[in-house]
Amino acid sequence: MKPEKFYPDTIKKALQQDPPGEWMPYVPEGCIRLSSGYPDPALVPSQQLKGAVSTLLDEEQDLPLHYIGSPRIDSLKAFILARQEERGFPAKEEDVLITSGACQAIDLIARILLDESSVVVVEAPTYMEALEIFKNYTNQIISIPIDKKGMQVEELAKLLATRQEQGLPKPKLVYTIPTFQNPTGTTMSVERRMQLLALAEQYDFLVLEDDAYGELAFYQSPKALKALDQNERVFYVGSLSKVVAPGMRIGWISAASEFIQTLSWFKKDLDHPFSHASMSALLETINYKDRLHQLNNRYQEKCQVMLKALETYLPDSVTWYIPKGGYFVWVRIPGSDTSKLLTKASQAGVSYLPGEFFFMNQEEGKEYLRLSFSYESEGQIEKGIKLLGSIL
Amino acid sequence: MKPEKFYPDTIKKALQQDPPGEWMPYVPEGCIRLSSGYPDPALVPSQQLKGAVSTLLDEEQDLPLHYIGSPRIDSLKAFILARQEERGFPAKEEDVLITSGACQAIDLIARILLDESSVVVVEAPTYMEALEIFKNYTNQIISIPIDKKGMQVEELAKLLATRQEQGLPKPKLVYTIPTFQNPTGTTMSVERRMQLLALAEQYDFLVLEDDAYGELAFYQSPKALKALDQNERVFYVGSLSKVVAPGMRIGWISAASEFIQTLSWFKKDLDHPFSHASMSALLETINYKDRLHQLNNRYQEKCQVMLKALETYLPDSVTWYIPKGGYFVWVRIPGSDTSKLLTKASQAGVSYLPGEFFFMNQEEGKEYLRLSFSYESEGQIEKGIKLLGSIL
Repeated sequence: MKPEKFYPDTIKKALQQDPPGEWMPYVPEGCIRLSSGYPDPALVPSQQLKGAVSTLLDEEQDLPLHYIGSPRIDSLKAFILARQEERGFPAKEEDVLITSGACQAIDLIARILLDESSVVVVEAPTYMEALEIFKNYTNQIISIPIDKKGMQVEELAKLLATRQEQGLPKPKLVYTIPTFQNPTGTTMSVERRMQLLALAEQYDFLVLEDDAYGELAFYQSPKALKALDQNERVFYVGSLSKVVAPGMRIGWISAASEFIQTLSWFKKDLDHPFSHASMSALLETINYKDRLHQLNNRYQEKCQVMLKALETYLPDSVTWYIPKGGYFVWVRIPGSDTSKLLTKASQAGVSYLPGEFFFMNQEEGKEYLRLSFSYESEGQIEKGIKLLGSIL
Repeated sequence: MKPEKFYPDTIKKALQQDPPGEWMPYVPEGCIRLSSGYPDPALVPSQQLKGAVSTLLDEEQDLPLHYIGSPRIDSLKAFILARQEERGFPAKEEDVLITSGACQAIDLIARILLDESSVVVVEAPTYMEALEIFKNYTNQIISIPIDKKGMQVEELAKLLATRQEQGLPKPKLVYTIPTFQNPTGTTMSVERRMQLLALAEQYDFLVLEDDAYGELAFYQSPKALKALDQNERVFYVGSLSKVVAPGMRIGWISAASEFIQTLSWFKKDLDHPFSHASMSALLETINYKDRLHQLNNRYQEKCQVMLKALETYLPDSVTWYIPKGGYFVWVRIPGSDTSKLLTKASQAGVSYLPGEFFFMNQEEGKEYLRLSFSYESEGQIEKGIKLLGSIL
């Protein structure tokens, strides 16, 4: 059996461009996981969820176990609409589609917008899973570099002008994580946000705003990019993975209702009543604002421990951005090859994600690595950075 | 904002061919739901699930709430492998991909195999959601009629021979529900199963076996079609929706590992750890064979009540297949238009699914309707059929 002969050309091309396989580096048992973008285990509300599921099944019995019928599914939508209000834009019920986390959201948006003729713009570096998704649809992916104020929108403006002069196709979609970006932790300035939306209008493209970390602010969260969107050009993607628990798989898309209708038509896994109703029951037992406050205090403390350890244990040549939220510190070790270095680091007992995963052109990521302060305890974070320092 | 201008041609065509919207007929409050393919509420193990989730979260704490890490996710795979053994074919771990129910399974298979140049064969009638899915990829869908021994494979053989003579493209995929079919309740004979696989070899096509009802046998379940598959031509799709609970969204694909690898690469909703681990914890508390036995006794009793009521209350001209398993009775009312009749039926207080939903050529379904005996109680089933009789 040769499966290839049955695949359409688009699937063959996608598989050639990006062959399936294990892409995450192996983390040996016992390693300090500065690689994992997981929430802090102590902040995952497993005991509260236990109580919530118990209440749910006592009150609703079989309802959340059918295809439809649980009233708590409607409450989850209402909760999401309230979050959108907080992020600076009011959304109506028909503007929102609940998805299985941000990944399915990004894939669905790609599915209804992209084919091999489409040009997509991403940040460099960017969320590796989004790159994987876009590569399933097109090989025309252009990277725009990031600095401490987020995507260098001026560079995008130049690129768009040049492409227009040269008669090259316009991008259809720009993917950005404007707030507490993965992997850099940077936040796009308001000026750049305004400029990005003006360019979207001028060159007639759409924007995918990935806001998975938007509420994880140490000080204050900037409003969402979509809050500035006057012309329905932004697909906003939200997620409860980083603020509640990734294993529940709750994300969503907010966009113009016409887009939501199409996205919903191509979302063929139906909805997830038990997961949605359980999350909804959990949220009933949580004061969400207090929870955000608690999360952000804890993550800020852990981030400071990491930053202090970086100052203490790493050579002076090593640099990083100072994040104001999110899960990550993006580190540059000049002259290094972080993929090669990972073997040594793992043997020493600490893991990270090498920079190459976050770039279309992997070579650009050679000197970089992503550290996560979310998952491990303060003690382990300090120990991990010390180990990293010891092998440099 | 005109969304259409941003859609690729394939998406535009799919939307033209099959515009989004509410497709399920509205069921007024208080109606007896002979339309719903839901399990019997009394057979949905909500209290057992409550205990299982409690055990899960006490024992594993945050583990099932991260992206990976819960040992019970592995146990779910092991359970599925044991089910495959029971259905007549041993499968290895790398041959199985867990999906969000059968719908996501069918959509993923369509996604890696079909484009607008592909020809798909379906049964007439067939599962309406599968039709919706295939129409998102191609408009070349050919129907082969069903009789009481399942798909008329002889007709498929003729069609294939004719198309070959005429130089028309070969089908790439044949979709079948060989056991306790939705909507007809029929089961494909062993002879036809053998012939279908021989044709697959001769004309080099693949088969999608939807086995959502395969274990719901009043007497004995025939082995899966895949149990006869010598050449890895069959994608087997299983589901726990009908035997445990649809709201958990657990289905799977068994196929050659090369296909599974590709399917997995295009499945971008990641996995659903909480749902998978909860199901796994639930299955630990259930004797699955006893459960099947109990389900099948109950559904057989309910089916018999429905068949007796049909005999008693419906005109002699009305006919149906006698199911040996599954959830449905497929009824023909000669000279009727079941879509028009539904308004009267709903007003009288009973709902069903009109035949037109189950055919590519909706006109063919005009005289048919699907009744479900799974959801309502015996008393309601009898009352519902009596109401149906009263409006004929």
